[in-house]
Amino acid sequence: MELWYTEKQTENHGITTKISETLYSEKTDFQQLDIINTKQFGRMLVLDGMVMTTDVDEFVYHEMISHVALNTHPNPKKVLVVGGGDGGAIREIVKHPSVEKAVLAEIDGGVIESCKKYFPQIASELTGNPRVDVQVIDGIKHIHDHKGEYDVIMVDSTEPVGPAVGLFEKGFYQGIYDALKPDGIMVAQTESPWFNRDLIKRVFKDIGSIFPVTRLYTCSIPTYPSGLWSFTIGSKQHDPLEVDASKIKDLNTKYYNAEIHHAVFKLPNFVAELTRD
Amino acid sequence: MELWYTEKQTENHGITTKISETLYSEKTDFQQLDIINTKQFGRMLVLDGMVMTTDVDEFVYHEMISHVALNTHPNPKKVLVVGGGDGGAIREIVKHPSVEKAVLAEIDGGVIESCKKYFPQIASELTGNPRVDVQVIDGIKHIHDHKGEYDVIMVDSTEPVGPAVGLFEKGFYQGIYDALKPDGIMVAQTESPWFNRDLIKRVFKDIGSIFPVTRLYTCSIPTYPSGLWSFTIGSKQHDPLEVDASKIKDLNTKYYNAEIHHAVFKLPNFVAELTRD
Repeated sequence: MELWYTEKQTENHGITTKISETLYSEKTDFQQLDIINTKQFGRMLVLDGMVMTTDVDEFVYHEMISHVALNTHPNPKKVLVVGGGDGGAIREIVKHPSVEKAVLAEIDGGVIESCKKYFPQIASELTGNPRVDVQVIDGIKHIHDHKGEYDVIMVDSTEPVGPAVGLFEKGFYQGIYDALKPDGIMVAQTESPWFNRDLIKRVFKDIGSIFPVTRLYTCSIPTYPSGLWSFTIGSKQHDPLEVDASKIKDLNTKYYNAEIHHAVFKLPNFVAELTRD
Repeated sequence: MELWYTEKQTENHGITTKISETLYSEKTDFQQLDIINTKQFGRMLVLDGMVMTTDVDEFVYHEMISHVALNTHPNPKKVLVVGGGDGGAIREIVKHPSVEKAVLAEIDGGVIESCKKYFPQIASELTGNPRVDVQVIDGIKHIHDHKGEYDVIMVDSTEPVGPAVGLFEKGFYQGIYDALKPDGIMVAQTESPWFNRDLIKRVFKDIGSIFPVTRLYTCSIPTYPSGLWSFTIGSKQHDPLEVDASKIKDLNTKYYNAEIHHAVFKLPNFVAELTRD
């Protein structure tokens, strides 16, 4: 018997991948959580039927949501991840020696616990690291209660349906602005430039109306819709384009490097047009 | 009734896409050819069960196989496409005013004829353009008979199975070298950096043993395996990295631009390692 997991990434298109078994399933307080063992990508975390991360390609998303902003800020000490319960972003953040405190604000404790068990190499820093503070809390509430505290805030959300819908709203980006220090930076995952063009345009415009510096960048994630993924940066002061690449330190990464830091902001025309009115 | 076309891109992973109908099917002299109407990507050309091109994302592949090499050569006059029967590369090539002759050497006349009929916007320059010379011929034979003639040669092949297997061999690259002028440039499509790592390493090494300048670059193609695709350049003299971006003219493209020309050579670490021994 062959088992194949198929995700309809849009109404009309998806990926299908061979699995050996379902390792774990749970209906958490917020979503359906499944962990399957795939032949191509190793273990795969699926939330509400959407691929969140896999053993094989997780490094791309987690490095690229983290290191671009962290290397743009000259001295990031206090960093917040909203969402990101798998711990991958936290693992990358604590590679930066300047970081004194990395806070995870994840609404769904079920994600954290299952990732600790089934993705130990992703969740490796969620346990036993005194620089890491794991909080099971609504990120919107957390930023409301911590004004002016953070150097960098990352929105490591699921798709804009279900529990994450509020994380794509303009009011939330204003809340992030308020939770950042006067030279703080935010970065949010903002979906596929092929399939989610209206969303990217709206978010870029919303963040651009709040932050003086707004930038869009992309990377290749094979298990995400279209294989091309975008992130949007909002910054109060520091511009990722002005980073001196020669000063970017090697952080033992598999995707990010000093040249990639700048190259990912050079957008194909069909993506660049999403950043124009 | 819902119809879905599924391509197993590897033994264990693939894409699945909703279709309204099969427009055309033919067993040509070389391969099975199918044209289907998809909901997500418009019309889709499938050869031997593998997606070759679609209405919606064809611009990426065709622009990126063409303009990087053509803008690296200071004055490309005579250009050869090996394969590429859909005509997309030819359409991009003739955007360059310096090009006096663009030759298509496609082994399968069935591909040319069906693309003229079903993909008129891709095959638009295959008919009635006096600068275009369409030949139904084995590309290996063509280059053998035209030594020292070409400024740029593009290997626009199918996957390295079936009729295209010879187009990934070292002897073929030597033949291309011989068919190029003393400052000629070749570019070949070289599959996915996620799924075809051994092939990319071998081709890069083979081309590097023949050409003094060898470069690897990538782009995003959602209907190709993993969504990330690679091209390998071999050049006798001109280096794509030394092109003055300010001199790259706008060619009415949707993906390629002067900044992309350089950015695509900045490789993620897991791709860059394929270019090292």
